[in-house]
Amino acid sequence: MSETIGFIGLGQLGLPVATNLLTAGYALRVYNRTASKAESLVAQGAQLVTRPVDAVMTGGIVVTIVWDDAALESVVMSDGFLEHLGPGGIHVAMSTVLPETSKKLAAIHAHHDCAYVEATIFGRPEAAVAHSLWIPVAGPQRAKERVRPLLSAMGGQGIFDFGEEVGAATLVKLVGNFLIASAGRSLREALSMAEKNGVDPKAVIDMLTQTLFPAPIYQSYGKRIAENTKAAPFSQSKIPLKDVGLFKTTAQQVESPTPIASLLYDLLRSDEARA
Amino acid sequence: MSETIGFIGLGQLGLPVATNLLTAGYALRVYNRTASKAESLVAQGAQLVTRPVDAVMTGGIVVTIVWDDAALESVVMSDGFLEHLGPGGIHVAMSTVLPETSKKLAAIHAHHDCAYVEATIFGRPEAAVAHSLWIPVAGPQRAKERVRPLLSAMGGQGIFDFGEEVGAATLVKLVGNFLIASAGRSLREALSMAEKNGVDPKAVIDMLTQTLFPAPIYQSYGKRIAENTKAAPFSQSKIPLKDVGLFKTTAQQVESPTPIASLLYDLLRSDEARA
Repeated sequence: MSETIGFIGLGQLGLPVATNLLTAGYALRVYNRTASKAESLVAQGAQLVTRPVDAVMTGGIVVTIVWDDAALESVVMSDGFLEHLGPGGIHVAMSTVLPETSKKLAAIHAHHDCAYVEATIFGRPEAAVAHSLWIPVAGPQRAKERVRPLLSAMGGQGIFDFGEEVGAATLVKLVGNFLIASAGRSLREALSMAEKNGVDPKAVIDMLTQTLFPAPIYQSYGKRIAENTKAAPFSQSKIPLKDVGLFKTTAQQVESPTPIASLLYDLLRSDEARA
Repeated sequence: MSETIGFIGLGQLGLPVATNLLTAGYALRVYNRTASKAESLVAQGAQLVTRPVDAVMTGGIVVTIVWDDAALESVVMSDGFLEHLGPGGIHVAMSTVLPETSKKLAAIHAHHDCAYVEATIFGRPEAAVAHSLWIPVAGPQRAKERVRPLLSAMGGQGIFDFGEEVGAATLVKLVGNFLIASAGRSLREALSMAEKNGVDPKAVIDMLTQTLFPAPIYQSYGKRIAENTKAAPFSQSKIPLKDVGLFKTTAQQVESPTPIASLLYDLLRSDEARA
């Protein structure tokens, strides 16, 4: 496995995922806006490049894990990126963005005869290290088949195929992150109420995660909230606010009502303002 | 095991739970406002009585599973109920009521030298039949020990002790039912949005319940909602509206904020108005 992969975006998830690829034997050309983030990868043999286009090999595979829609579009639209990826090339887009951004970018890739594969990631950075990420994918069938070993090597313990229509994998990611935000905020409301009524929130979450909610989300957030019901469950991360916002936007585009997402968005915004 | 137990309340959960007790070899004196509900139990040897007090044996155990606080109070305050239960008697109160109602009733029982044990039930009627109920309990230690075999015979696969202070087991029930309502309504919002965006809600829930949310609540409600995203997830039941209302009241008594419970209450009330 000495194939060279382009890798753009070395954030909290990008870095451990790229490290997994190196460990699995892939060669990497890496780009990141803040070049110093690449140090550990370079020490392990990755080649650091200074423009997105330099990470791209014609007919090859380039992976992007960047913060938002604007960052993703600016990479794709950067000088020579698509021309260089060219016929047979595959862009594996792993950022959480609007499904409509994915669809728009997929069409632009098709114009250049290259494939756009959506592969979003469920899992915290620790899960990448532990090779226990879950990855929904969508895009052209042959391109998905070609990148599947790569997704496994990145740390994907489960890869879920949502068909050829791009947009589905980002939508599933938004649905999942909305449900996580809803569960986390509901847990905080419930455990605070238990504590103020003199009932130990640890005993409550202990029972509930053995019975009704034996799920990683309830276990991890429940434990954290039970230890400090006053702290906002997600205060250390801007991701829930951003992704609940994308969920709302995507729902509103199809006139699907979002009473809970709208409330969550406001609550998360208040958390952020207080942080 | 030929001990005779008083059993009051033969609703959707009361009936299968009482049936389990008969099957386990207990003798029952049953009371229900609508006497005809007792027919199957009488056919299996239960004795039907016409007043709550007639189900009570001095020093014995009487179980109540009734709809709400008012129904529970009217049983406890009915003529001779507490006098007849008397010293050494135990009232196993399984209804979902306000913790403050439980505390008030526990104090009244103590005045009559009998014990009030809270034992609330998580599980649908099918779970009672399958002996897979989860039962949080609170109350005097010795009384809890005496009723534990009875709770197992009722169909309790797990019994969770929340200490001697009555109120804790009803509070845990309210917390659980609030979290169920929140998860169910959030699932509906999310799966409707997926469907309107052309993504199959069955595929979405299939992935999420294999990964982030491998919990019975998400599996059962998710499946039901994915089959019909337009139907209200709980339209067939008045329980979520009632219990989210009790959750709100209990939180407000200790000035614990309930943004999500308040929204859920309004949403569930709209569902009911439309049903």
